[in-house]
Amino acid sequence: MHVIVLGSSAGGGLPQWNCGCPQCHAARRGDPDVHARHQSSICVSADGVNWVLFNASPDVRSQLAATPALWPTALRHSPVRAIALTNADIDHAAGLLVLREGGAPAIYCTERVEEALTEGLRILPVLGAYGPVHVRRVTPGETVRVCDRDGAPTGVSVRAFVVASKPSPYMAGRHANDPRGDLAGDTVGYAITADGSDDALVYVPGVRDLDDALRDELSRARCVLIDGTFFTDDELVAMGASTKTARVMGHAPLAGDTGLLAFLRGLTHVRRVLVHINNSNPVLREGSDAREALAAHGVELAHDGLSMVW
Amino acid sequence: MHVIVLGSSAGGGLPQWNCGCPQCHAARRGDPDVHARHQSSICVSADGVNWVLFNASPDVRSQLAATPALWPTALRHSPVRAIALTNADIDHAAGLLVLREGGAPAIYCTERVEEALTEGLRILPVLGAYGPVHVRRVTPGETVRVCDRDGAPTGVSVRAFVVASKPSPYMAGRHANDPRGDLAGDTVGYAITADGSDDALVYVPGVRDLDDALRDELSRARCVLIDGTFFTDDELVAMGASTKTARVMGHAPLAGDTGLLAFLRGLTHVRRVLVHINNSNPVLREGSDAREALAAHGVELAHDGLSMVW
Repeated sequence: MHVIVLGSSAGGGLPQWNCGCPQCHAARRGDPDVHARHQSSICVSADGVNWVLFNASPDVRSQLAATPALWPTALRHSPVRAIALTNADIDHAAGLLVLREGGAPAIYCTERVEEALTEGLRILPVLGAYGPVHVRRVTPGETVRVCDRDGAPTGVSVRAFVVASKPSPYMAGRHANDPRGDLAGDTVGYAITADGSDDALVYVPGVRDLDDALRDELSRARCVLIDGTFFTDDELVAMGASTKTARVMGHAPLAGDTGLLAFLRGLTHVRRVLVHINNSNPVLREGSDAREALAAHGVELAHDGLSMVW
Repeated sequence: MHVIVLGSSAGGGLPQWNCGCPQCHAARRGDPDVHARHQSSICVSADGVNWVLFNASPDVRSQLAATPALWPTALRHSPVRAIALTNADIDHAAGLLVLREGGAPAIYCTERVEEALTEGLRILPVLGAYGPVHVRRVTPGETVRVCDRDGAPTGVSVRAFVVASKPSPYMAGRHANDPRGDLAGDTVGYAITADGSDDALVYVPGVRDLDDALRDELSRARCVLIDGTFFTDDELVAMGASTKTARVMGHAPLAGDTGLLAFLRGLTHVRRVLVHINNSNPVLREGSDAREALAAHGVELAHDGLSMVW
């Protein structure tokens, strides 16, 4: 299995267009202690030839251009054979609009995500004006062999599992009476395997509730790429950038007794790597106390271009 | 007046995600004869402080990050005070989704473009979930002082004029019986001035029909930035990338007796610069015959970062 992190930042990226925080400024200036980062996306391949993109960030064009494994090998071609979405957030789905000339790769998502991208932000109907659109339904708990738009297997399989986060802001309130609440499939994680192997990558770029079901998923993985959006729950409030806490925005913070670092503590047999890092998070600065706290917990910070093979 | 070209490429950019043509490959490899280019956008300012973005390309985040004049000067701030759209094509409008955290700048567009972004690709309603959206209607022929979302003048004025190109593919066929046909405002150009000056920049990144009305607009400009998408009408057909000609795709080709270079020939008193260059266009390669033909006509090729002040 081949894994490449294409973007390790949360929505907005680093730098974010309208953010004047010290870390965004440092990234703009090329400060060696704060590296610029694309928005949240990874790609996975079983054979190093056919790739599955997980999430299509608004930065997808430059992400593909920066990754030789994803360069075309014919006049109209892409090694990206399929796309799987963890939710319908703009930072995970808007890049679908970029992947249109000549027809988009096959798109795998839950019913809720398909609804959001059909009725909320009408990306899927719009893509249909540029070529056939192949949307394949993902049902949490079921393992799916990911195929390209012509039905040929990519060699990668996924099993989605629901996590509690929040619906995309533009879909908020639509399903207020659904008894499944936050577990209806607005946000999922994926257990990703190469066909014939049990060594799973578990990818969870957004999660608020750290519960036993999630712990079970993570404990069975070879490697987890998981939501490191905010270091503290009141991070954006304290810096004056928002009135919303991390949890209100759908993310468990890293720090504290109920934070992700404490939650990951027992999983020492699993490689634990943070993704979806917000530009406000102090772990982004080399040498910071927060960065050292990660190391003390045996948790890594992903960077754009991080590559893993097993 | 300050003008910066943020992106000189057509939709898809250079390189395009799924294009294996020699020029896209050269741009990926960093070939010094074929420079990588962002998708189509410019920004204009009267005072060098408050800027108006013309078109919001999918590359807008990296375009702003690459342009120090557009860096924030406070925790939540952008020198981009307003955005004017020439049409609702994905390469000109999808970047609006990126400009959301903390509220988008004021958006200026025609009725047809607002309809496309409300009913076709629902960018405007979706943006409303992230903050107030200020859409201001542009009526062709009327001069508008561009104001920020709070109503403060930017110092830039625009007068839109209709041009014949084509509706965005995802809106095709909706207005088949409109007697205005291609001149209903799906695509416009802008005559752009600093308040108190008559020295206009005319910006026309997409135009198919080169008629007397367009010639009049161009002849009154100090500088024109105009549609250089394709060199020949059958460019994509000949290379095997499409069955569509330049004109079917809404663009006059550069070459030939009825092409744009011939059309621009009499306008020697105007600075003439090509923008919206498709990755297939041979003018993109330094030293090519096509590039030399531009020089022979006194026509320039824009590059990302091209800056003009008058």
